Amino acid sequence: MKIDILTLFPEMFTGVLGQSILHKAAEKSAVKYNVVNFREYADNKHNTVDDYPYGGGAGMVLKPQPIFDAVADLKEKAASPNTRVILLCPQGSRYDQRKAEELAREDHLIFICGHYEGYDERIRENIVTDEISIGDYVLTGGELGAMVVIDSVVRLLPEVLGNEESHMKDSFSTGLLEHPHYTRPADFRGLKVPEVLLSGNHKLIEEWRNKEALRRTLLRRPDLLEKIDLTDEQEKWLQEVKKESK
Amino acid sequence: MKIDILTLFPEMFTGVLGQSILHKAAEKSAVKYNVVNFREYADNKHNTVDDYPYGGGAGMVLKPQPIFDAVADLKEKAASPNTRVILLCPQGSRYDQRKAEELAREDHLIFICGHYEGYDERIRENIVTDEISIGDYVLTGGELGAMVVIDSVVRLLPEVLGNEESHMKDSFSTGLLEHPHYTRPADFRGLKVPEVLLSGNHKLIEEWRNKEALRRTLLRRPDLLEKIDLTDEQEKWLQEVKKESK
Repeated sequence: MKIDILTLFPEMFTGVLGQSILHKAAEKSAVKYNVVNFREYADNKHNTVDDYPYGGGAGMVLKPQPIFDAVADLKEKAASPNTRVILLCPQGSRYDQRKAEELAREDHLIFICGHYEGYDERIRENIVTDEISIGDYVLTGGELGAMVVIDSVVRLLPEVLGNEESHMKDSFSTGLLEHPHYTRPADFRGLKVPEVLLSGNHKLIEEWRNKEALRRTLLRRPDLLEKIDLTDEQEKWLQEVKKESK
Repeated sequence: MKIDILTLFPEMFTGVLGQSILHKAAEKSAVKYNVVNFREYADNKHNTVDDYPYGGGAGMVLKPQPIFDAVADLKEKAASPNTRVILLCPQGSRYDQRKAEELAREDHLIFICGHYEGYDERIRENIVTDEISIGDYVLTGGELGAMVVIDSVVRLLPEVLGNEESHMKDSFSTGLLEHPHYTRPADFRGLKVPEVLLSGNHKLIEEWRNKEALRRTLLRRPDLLEKIDLTDEQEKWLQEVKKESK
């Protein structure tokens, strides 16, 4: 996968792309990152990338020209039959794991990150394929959103995750929140690990974990329970959990 | 505000905290960041911070000791009457702007970022005050979530935002998505700016913007319309928009 990132703050990406899984993925050649300051594409004397809004008002608006030309150039260089051009903005569709899986099947992604400016609408209408919002909160720019999307997508690419890292995915794929985890010591300053986990009885441990996953999901994210089909056994455990929490 | 960040990947933060608003906020002394590798607090010979899960299974679990001791030490150093200890995890409450506003009123935040490991449950139960998830997608660690929360909180602190940056907030505070923006040129390679914006008629421009904000919200995020009280004028515009989109 090739990932191009258009930003006015390229240095924001150095730490995140240079560490951990995102770094390893590039080392394994599963992905190639290219962080581009789109100011380089401005065709005016002062390399201006933004201007005042038509109709008045506060704030600046990103001009179409630098971004149109950057995207055209990056598409030509990638020569991919299919490029997704992703705009990070509060007006976009809410990002979720399903979208991450969809993007992980592509081979060329271009991210456009504005930074306190708005975007000229012609950018959205003519070159963007996906407008994405990572959540209902206000961020200074699209950079953090791009990092979030990139992390969630790259970790899904084949051969990127080792065994150690891959277990986190499992919990989500069940559609439930994860059960609690405990590690040594069994007694930490008087705080004890549930006895069942020390019992060595794998059947009981499995049942405890299933019930606790259901309990946590019921208490914290009941909406998730409506989206999945429970097995008969899970349904039984859920009823027990409901009784216990009354 | 003092912000402590516990992570095994401190370098991930350098680029993000060192640029733009987050950097300016620290320069203005509105906030002080302290990125701590909590491995330094491990009291065992090999500075181990994780261990196998009780009850078996894949993946490692973060041990209680290094995080308990790090949080205790950072609390003592900050000497704040009130510290929020925030754990980033998929099991947390969904983060939103209301939560950002709540955290912006505090004076000491500690973020705990796990990284593909799970957390020993005793950490959650005994020292964490807030479990936060930034969205329903799987990330490699809590670091990006912490950056997102920090960016959204710090920009709300008094005197952090200049005029240029502050307009983005306005759009969200209306409860609607923003109307489209346009800047020069009025004709970019045949793509034209809506005529009303060039008219100089401020009443018409204001009406167009209000209607387009309503239209965009109706088409993309109808859930937001249910959460706000529209004025009579907005209600009239909304009806017009609905008629037009039939």
